[in-house]
Amino acid sequence: MERKKIAIIGVGLIGGSLALQLHEKKLSSKLIGVDSDPSHAQKAVELELVDEIMTLDDAIAAVNVIVLAIPVNAILKLLPPLLDKIDQQIVVDLGSTKSLLINAIKAHPKRGRYVATHPMWGTEYSGPEAAVREAFEDKAVIICNAHESDTDALEWVKAMYKKIGMHLLEMEAEAHDLHAAYVSHISHITSFALANTVLEKEKEENAIFELASAGFESTVRLAKSNPAMWAPIFMQNKENVLDVLKEHIAQLTRFKESIEKEDNDYLMKLIENANKIRRIIK
Amino acid sequence: MERKKIAIIGVGLIGGSLALQLHEKKLSSKLIGVDSDPSHAQKAVELELVDEIMTLDDAIAAVNVIVLAIPVNAILKLLPPLLDKIDQQIVVDLGSTKSLLINAIKAHPKRGRYVATHPMWGTEYSGPEAAVREAFEDKAVIICNAHESDTDALEWVKAMYKKIGMHLLEMEAEAHDLHAAYVSHISHITSFALANTVLEKEKEENAIFELASAGFESTVRLAKSNPAMWAPIFMQNKENVLDVLKEHIAQLTRFKESIEKEDNDYLMKLIENANKIRRIIK
Repeated sequence: MERKKIAIIGVGLIGGSLALQLHEKKLSSKLIGVDSDPSHAQKAVELELVDEIMTLDDAIAAVNVIVLAIPVNAILKLLPPLLDKIDQQIVVDLGSTKSLLINAIKAHPKRGRYVATHPMWGTEYSGPEAAVREAFEDKAVIICNAHESDTDALEWVKAMYKKIGMHLLEMEAEAHDLHAAYVSHISHITSFALANTVLEKEKEENAIFELASAGFESTVRLAKSNPAMWAPIFMQNKENVLDVLKEHIAQLTRFKESIEKEDNDYLMKLIENANKIRRIIK
Repeated sequence: MERKKIAIIGVGLIGGSLALQLHEKKLSSKLIGVDSDPSHAQKAVELELVDEIMTLDDAIAAVNVIVLAIPVNAILKLLPPLLDKIDQQIVVDLGSTKSLLINAIKAHPKRGRYVATHPMWGTEYSGPEAAVREAFEDKAVIICNAHESDTDALEWVKAMYKKIGMHLLEMEAEAHDLHAAYVSHISHITSFALANTVLEKEKEENAIFELASAGFESTVRLAKSNPAMWAPIFMQNKENVLDVLKEHIAQLTRFKESIEKEDNDYLMKLIENANKIRRIIK
């Protein structure tokens, strides 16, 4: 696979981790970082995530591939003017929502140069120092509305993800946003809300610190996630997120009612039903 | 430390894992298992968790220490008649609630022989096959109403947990039940409810299976936990669990409202507040 010059827009957790893979898997001949935060840009060079930092315009002129690893609201804003500026470069985004982004450039003459993707990987940390080696491996990546991308752009992006070791799935943007709300976005909301619950109720922080079991840490871990990344995701996927969030509140209310009424049979049934997740998550 | 003959009542995840530690740390000269489920009893011998299986009455007569590792509703039922039957044996329970158990035998002439404890360790699996080596190590254990136990019984139980490598904390039962609701019980309810939400909304199980990220697995992991263990915990700690569950529903409702109203500032504030959990959970 021919190495390409690649610009990473946003050299944080996601962009930085991808940059490490692009180098490691010999996919890049040069890695250029672009970041609106000068301290992040500097750190990304220090950590050798990228070879050098450029302005966006200089980077566009210097590369074959442009990777968008910024929050989805920033992608939405940047994508149309970016497509205005490019020639034959490939543009690929890694955002957690897809419909709004794809609709925003549906009729753009350069639509074909853009490949919409969502690699299902992340951690609760953020910034260039959160970048880790061997990220994305063995995880799923969803490519949305693949038929709207030019064949060469699509094939290169697919080959890149395969070389990183990801499982490729293709889906329409609407289906992606629905499934992402269920298997990713709602987990973050429950975790944020759980953290707020415990911080509100448990005034003795020492007690949390000393008593917190692995179970608590597991359910509250995602609550450390970056607000600038997640707030726009929930907003852009509003309908699906609200739909699943309302269902989640209804499910919690069933637990509340079963305990209030001391209806042990109902409570047992609710938990036994939850156990069915074993079928799906080993 | 002198080795003792120890009976484990309930040779599942918790009792089986403790049995492995009691042997490993040379705390037991003999390990006797008691279990109402004959297949669990047989399995516990096959797996060498215990040396042999006895009836409860035979076990009481044969040992110095009786460990209760059964669901909290079963402990509540067994504890008074068990204290009626013992002579100078030590009785220790590992249940996740404490007030109801302690109140049930408050005036019992053998109260002093009982030590109420809650080791903060577990997994989402159950039964003797779920028992693991090195369980409990580096975790907290709470000893409740220590002043109500005889000194020799209390000291032996504390020494046992120390030798296993646990951090000892002493607390009154009411404080324990409050904190346990916040840092353990609510996590299980949110995870059960999240599993039910996703199972209800996501009809394409393949999508969950293929797309589920580490984040989803982390928040839904506890939903695999044993109903027979957890339903009685929520019921016995009803007031505290309902209190924290109502707060959790209120917190989720704030997320819902901020998204419905597209109030990005409010949503950002909610997430930034949740991030404060970083202070407590590293």
